[in-house]
Amino acid sequence: MEDGDSGEDRFIARFLRPLAAHPAALGLRDDAALIAPPAGTDLVVTKDALVAGVHFFADDPPGAIAQKALRVNLSDLAAKGAVPFGAFLALALPREADEAWLEAFFDGLGADVAAYGCPILGGDTVRTPGPLTLSVTALGTVPRGEFVPRTGARPGQAIIVSGTIGDAALGLKLRQEPGRFGFLSLIETQRGHLSDRYLHPQPRLALAPLLRSYAAAAMDVSDGLVGDVAKLLVASGCGGWITSSDVPLSAAAAAAVAAEPDLLRTALTGGDDYEIAAVLPVAALPAFAEEALALGIPVCVIGETCVGRGLDVLDAAGDPLQFGVGSYSHF
Amino acid sequence: MEDGDSGEDRFIARFLRPLAAHPAALGLRDDAALIAPPAGTDLVVTKDALVAGVHFFADDPPGAIAQKALRVNLSDLAAKGAVPFGAFLALALPREADEAWLEAFFDGLGADVAAYGCPILGGDTVRTPGPLTLSVTALGTVPRGEFVPRTGARPGQAIIVSGTIGDAALGLKLRQEPGRFGFLSLIETQRGHLSDRYLHPQPRLALAPLLRSYAAAAMDVSDGLVGDVAKLLVASGCGGWITSSDVPLSAAAAAAVAAEPDLLRTALTGGDDYEIAAVLPVAALPAFAEEALALGIPVCVIGETCVGRGLDVLDAAGDPLQFGVGSYSHF
Repeated sequence: MEDGDSGEDRFIARFLRPLAAHPAALGLRDDAALIAPPAGTDLVVTKDALVAGVHFFADDPPGAIAQKALRVNLSDLAAKGAVPFGAFLALALPREADEAWLEAFFDGLGADVAAYGCPILGGDTVRTPGPLTLSVTALGTVPRGEFVPRTGARPGQAIIVSGTIGDAALGLKLRQEPGRFGFLSLIETQRGHLSDRYLHPQPRLALAPLLRSYAAAAMDVSDGLVGDVAKLLVASGCGGWITSSDVPLSAAAAAAVAAEPDLLRTALTGGDDYEIAAVLPVAALPAFAEEALALGIPVCVIGETCVGRGLDVLDAAGDPLQFGVGSYSHF
Repeated sequence: MEDGDSGEDRFIARFLRPLAAHPAALGLRDDAALIAPPAGTDLVVTKDALVAGVHFFADDPPGAIAQKALRVNLSDLAAKGAVPFGAFLALALPREADEAWLEAFFDGLGADVAAYGCPILGGDTVRTPGPLTLSVTALGTVPRGEFVPRTGARPGQAIIVSGTIGDAALGLKLRQEPGRFGFLSLIETQRGHLSDRYLHPQPRLALAPLLRSYAAAAMDVSDGLVGDVAKLLVASGCGGWITSSDVPLSAAAAAAVAAEPDLLRTALTGGDDYEIAAVLPVAALPAFAEEALALGIPVCVIGETCVGRGLDVLDAAGDPLQFGVGSYSHF
């Protein structure tokens, strides 16, 4: 028996080894990866699973599926102030995943491995009679003691969010209900913007050092802004409020919401944003915003923490909005 | 929104948090785990995926499924000389996984978390329209520089294996073809032994320190002894031979092979053994065998490495046996 004899060996040699140049991967030729943690750092580890038909569409471009699986994990690292170290990929492939599909999948993954400096360090590829199922375990590093937790928010601090919120959730809705009233007035570039935000999450890794310097608490917005901020407040043991009109919307999302105000609920609770929600001391805001802007990342103050429990979402007049479900649960 | 409000929060609180007492898990309340690698250690990381109907039977006892998913990863750690640090579990649950199923699954997992000192540090639970799919990422530690690679074997060293080989593969065959000739003479306890070895892998973690001290190269036997030893030799850049009659068989496996000699091929190539195959300098054999025996783990010399390439499997007369497929590929 020689290396490359079995189907799995050939698969690894062709598709995975080119993404596994890091010495910790041991060329994907051993039972495990061997990681010498960089001195003075803590490791941050996150693991997300994605299932075709649940977390993405089976007919999404294969490269986009691969990138989403990696990026949703990198988004978790970013929120914790971490720099990517490497990732492990478990891939359960249905029979439909033919050579062309695999090539496109690993092309997409390879582009991200290079772009984010996140080599593949190991994993497992198996066949499944069911839908394509992926799990990525991403490892990152933070300088020792600088992990940004969910638990550090204190009353009287500012709640901020990066980028714009709701685009991905509206992009999903647009795909499901393209003829829906709220979308009719959108021009082609606006539709494209929403669709692209759903298909291609953009983890905010550039914000990681700023979060380490300034944030009391942070998380990424993956299950919906309202529910995710509520979770952060619970973890921190304080209450808070956000004003819906202060939540940053893209031009496309704003146009959809203007046409059909109910879509604001989708934007605020739909998830898949992969933006950063963070809580900062008010005094840190100017420096944080300036440095973020210098990186080309807009950040907006959307509310404040307070003594108490729970999150209130207020409209522009200061009246509370009700959300039956604050975040989307895939479970 | 409060902790415990969503289905996923309740699921975590009830089933997962009790297994996640390690501080690195952050109570499963954050986006990621935070690991301060113990000083002077390297991290060993492995990730295996298992799909119902491919790697186990959907109607296997739920606790055994959970344990198999963890243990096949712990077996990789053992082969590398590592001590378990913790594990991440991604679980894609079909609708059939009801409360009783989940309770049994997590009872089984909890027993192993305690028995192996391997807390759950994080992961993800999602629903799937397909078969139950699990992925475990296991982290272990080795004293810095003491990772036991696949690549260290040199010509003229002994090839050893722990325990007995072929029980699990025969246990699977017994389940698939209970009336097969080779199994007819087996008594109930022998059938039970084979079935149990398939259902309940026993990772050889106790051997890890001995492998660090004595082994030049090691791997766990998961895909079949012949193919796995061949892989180790390729990785090490040498050749070797094993004598089939020196491969240790249990009384049950020996009885089945005596009744139907073709089953030897199943035993040697079927996999799921989760024993350790290692290559040691001949001079280290006595101390290694004595220390293993003191731990209650039998080890057998089954062959030798040599200059060259490829693995020869010899019968008792020294004639080569042919194996079309040296190891089972789930892929």
